[in-house]
Amino acid sequence: MSKIAARAKALEFSPIRKLVPLAIAAKKRGIKIYHLNIGQPDIASPKLFLDGVKKFSDKIVAYEKSDGNEDLKQSLIKYHRRLGVKFVSSDLVVTFGGSEALAWAFFILFAAGDECLTLDPTYTNYLTFAAQGGVKLKPVLTKLADNFQIPPLSVIKKAVTKKTKGIIITNPSNPTGSVYDPKLLSALVDFCVKKKLFIIADETYREFVYGKTKFRSLLTFKKAEQLVVSADSFSKRYSLCGARLGLLASKNKAVMEAANKLAQSRLAVATIDQMAASKLHLVPQSYFKKIKSEYVGRRDELMQGLSRIDGVTFSRPDGAFYLIAQLPVKNAENFCKFMLNKFNHHQETVMLAPAEGFYVTPGMGRNQVRIAYVLNRRDLKRACELIKLGLSTYSG
Amino acid sequence: MSKIAARAKALEFSPIRKLVPLAIAAKKRGIKIYHLNIGQPDIASPKLFLDGVKKFSDKIVAYEKSDGNEDLKQSLIKYHRRLGVKFVSSDLVVTFGGSEALAWAFFILFAAGDECLTLDPTYTNYLTFAAQGGVKLKPVLTKLADNFQIPPLSVIKKAVTKKTKGIIITNPSNPTGSVYDPKLLSALVDFCVKKKLFIIADETYREFVYGKTKFRSLLTFKKAEQLVVSADSFSKRYSLCGARLGLLASKNKAVMEAANKLAQSRLAVATIDQMAASKLHLVPQSYFKKIKSEYVGRRDELMQGLSRIDGVTFSRPDGAFYLIAQLPVKNAENFCKFMLNKFNHHQETVMLAPAEGFYVTPGMGRNQVRIAYVLNRRDLKRACELIKLGLSTYSG
Repeated sequence: MSKIAARAKALEFSPIRKLVPLAIAAKKRGIKIYHLNIGQPDIASPKLFLDGVKKFSDKIVAYEKSDGNEDLKQSLIKYHRRLGVKFVSSDLVVTFGGSEALAWAFFILFAAGDECLTLDPTYTNYLTFAAQGGVKLKPVLTKLADNFQIPPLSVIKKAVTKKTKGIIITNPSNPTGSVYDPKLLSALVDFCVKKKLFIIADETYREFVYGKTKFRSLLTFKKAEQLVVSADSFSKRYSLCGARLGLLASKNKAVMEAANKLAQSRLAVATIDQMAASKLHLVPQSYFKKIKSEYVGRRDELMQGLSRIDGVTFSRPDGAFYLIAQLPVKNAENFCKFMLNKFNHHQETVMLAPAEGFYVTPGMGRNQVRIAYVLNRRDLKRACELIKLGLSTYSG
Repeated sequence: MSKIAARAKALEFSPIRKLVPLAIAAKKRGIKIYHLNIGQPDIASPKLFLDGVKKFSDKIVAYEKSDGNEDLKQSLIKYHRRLGVKFVSSDLVVTFGGSEALAWAFFILFAAGDECLTLDPTYTNYLTFAAQGGVKLKPVLTKLADNFQIPPLSVIKKAVTKKTKGIIITNPSNPTGSVYDPKLLSALVDFCVKKKLFIIADETYREFVYGKTKFRSLLTFKKAEQLVVSADSFSKRYSLCGARLGLLASKNKAVMEAANKLAQSRLAVATIDQMAASKLHLVPQSYFKKIKSEYVGRRDELMQGLSRIDGVTFSRPDGAFYLIAQLPVKNAENFCKFMLNKFNHHQETVMLAPAEGFYVTPGMGRNQVRIAYVLNRRDLKRACELIKLGLSTYSG
C-alpha cells in the first residue's frame, strides 16, 4: 500500500471536538448536555446580514473578486478606522474565515523549518496551520496564577533561537480570556522590532473586552507596521461563525502580494456571504455594548459558581468568553469523559474541553479545563452545580 | 527589514487574471470586451439553490459540522450513485470549493520535496496548491496535434523518478477540453497501481462531456480505490462558482482521517451555501442535457469561426468548455495585450488567456491561447471576427 505523508498523519484532532462521540451517545440515552466546550455564541447574528442574504437576486452565483467584494473591503476599511487604523483596499484580502488568513500567514512569513513563538496555552488550530506550512510552533508558557498575562521578556528571550522568525499573539486570548497589558505588549513589540520578528495578530475577540486591562490593537504600533499581519474573523464579532468570513490585512506590500497570489489560486470567497456582510460597519456600537454586558454577567455568574466548588481555581477573563479552570483531579480529560459517560443529575450533565489539548508544552494543563461561557446565566449556574456534583462523586 | 519566505515570493499570479488591469483600462475608454479568458459560465444557477438560500431562517449563522452538512453529504452520496460509485458519509469531506480539496490532497498524499506528475498544459492553480505543500509538479507534455490526449506510457515513464509519488488527472481537461480515452486511462491507472502512485482525480467538468470519446470516472477503477482521491467542485456542474463548495472524497481511510483533521482546524464550510446545496441531487438530467447541447453549439460555432482565420490551428474539445488555439504570432501574450491596449473594431475587442501560463514545461505554448466558450453563439461569432481582424492588423 501507498502511505499518506507523515506530516498528515501527525496532525491532531481538535481537542474541542474529540469527545463529541461520547456526547452523542449521552444524548441518545436522553441526557441533556450543557455545552461549555465550544465557542459557538448564542447571540443572534445582525439582522443586516440576514436581510442581506435574502436580498441576493442574481440568477448566477458567480465568482467574486479574488481579493474580496469591494463593498465589503470598503466596509472593513471603515470598521478599522474606528480602531484608529488606516487601511486602503490593497492592504486587505478577504479570506475563508480567520482560518485561511492564519494558514496563509504561516506560509507567507516563514520558511519550512522556521519557528514561530506562541504564548501557551494557545488556540490549538494554530498547530495545524503551522504544520501545513512546515512551521514549528514554539511555546512560551503563561500561568494561571498570573492570569495568563504576557510573561517577562527574559522568559520570552529564552524561547528564541536562530530559527525563530515571528510570534503569533492572540489578544484577547482564546483559550484563557486574558487581555494583554498594553505596557507588556509594547515591550514585546519593541523586542520584535529589534529582532525583526514578524507578528501575526489574531484579535478575533477584540470587540469583547470588559475587564480592568485596557486593550490595545497590534495594528496601532506604527513602528511595527511592516511586521504585523492581522488575521481577523467575522465569526465572533458578529456572531457569524457559519458565514466563514475573515481577513488578512497588512501594510507590508510583499505580504499582500503573496496573499493575492494565494487568493487567486483559490479563486474567491463565497459571493452571497460577502455581499450580505458588506454593510456590517453600520452595526451600531450599542450592539457590542449589549453583548459585552451580557458576557460580563455570564463571566461573573460562572466565577461565582466555580468559587463555590472546593479545590477549583481559575483565571479571571478580561475578554473573549473563555476561562481556564484547574480542577481537583489528576486528569481532567478523564473527568470530562466521566461527565459524559457515567454522570448525570436529573438527566443533565456538562461538556467541558480538557485544557491539555490547548498547551503546546508537553504535560501542561492536565488538570485544567477550558470553559466557554456561551450559555445564559441560568444555564451557567446549573452547569456549575453539575460540575460540583460531578466532582463530588468522581474518584479519578 | 524582515523578508517574507522565498516560497511565497516564488508563487505566480494567475495567468487568467494578469491582464485584468489592461481590460479595466480598455473598459474605461468605452471599449466592450468579449471575455473568452475566464471560465465563469453564463448558465443560470439551479433555482433549487437560489430558493434554498432564501429559506434560511435561523437567527444565528452557526458553525456547520467540520466535515460538512449531513444532508449535503447524503445528497452527494446520491449524486455519486448515478456514476456507479458507492460512497458512505465518512468517505466525504465538504470543502471550500474544489480548491481546498486540491490543496489538501497535495498536503496529505505527498511529503515536501515529493513529485507529482501532471499532463501538460495543466490547470495552473495546481502549481500554487502543490507549492503550498512543498510538492513539485512534474509535467508530461501532451500535444495539440494529438488533441492533448494521454501520451503513450513510455512517455509517462520517462517523467517518473524516485521522488514521484502520484499523478493529478484532470478529466475532462481544463485548459484543453480533452476527454481521456478510457483505454489509455485504464493503462495509466494500471501503471499507477503497479508503481503505487496516488491519483488525484479532478473531474470538475465530468457532466460536460459531449464528444466522441466516452468519459470514464477514475472513481470506477475498483483496483485503484485506495489510491484515488477525488477533488470535486460544484462550481461548474451547477454554475455555482460563487458558492465555493467542493468535496474531497476517497475510499482510503488514512486519507480521510487526515482530511478530517484539516477540516476541524478550519472549523467548517459556509453554513447557508451548504444548506442551499443540500438538494442538488434532485437537479434533473434534463438540466445537464440542455447545458451540454448549448456547449456543443458553442464549440461548433467557435471552431467554425476559428477555421476561417488563416494560420490558426486548434484542438477539438470533447468536454468542459475550453479550447487551445495556436495563433500565427510569435508571442500570444503580446497579442492578447495588443487586443486590449490598441485594437478595437466598432469599440469592441476580445480578451483571451495566453496559454503559456498553463504549461509547466518552460517555453511551451508561447504562441497559443486558451479560449473559454462561455458566451452565447452570436457573441462567439463576433469574437472570432474580432480575433481575425486583430490578427490582420497585428505585427508582432
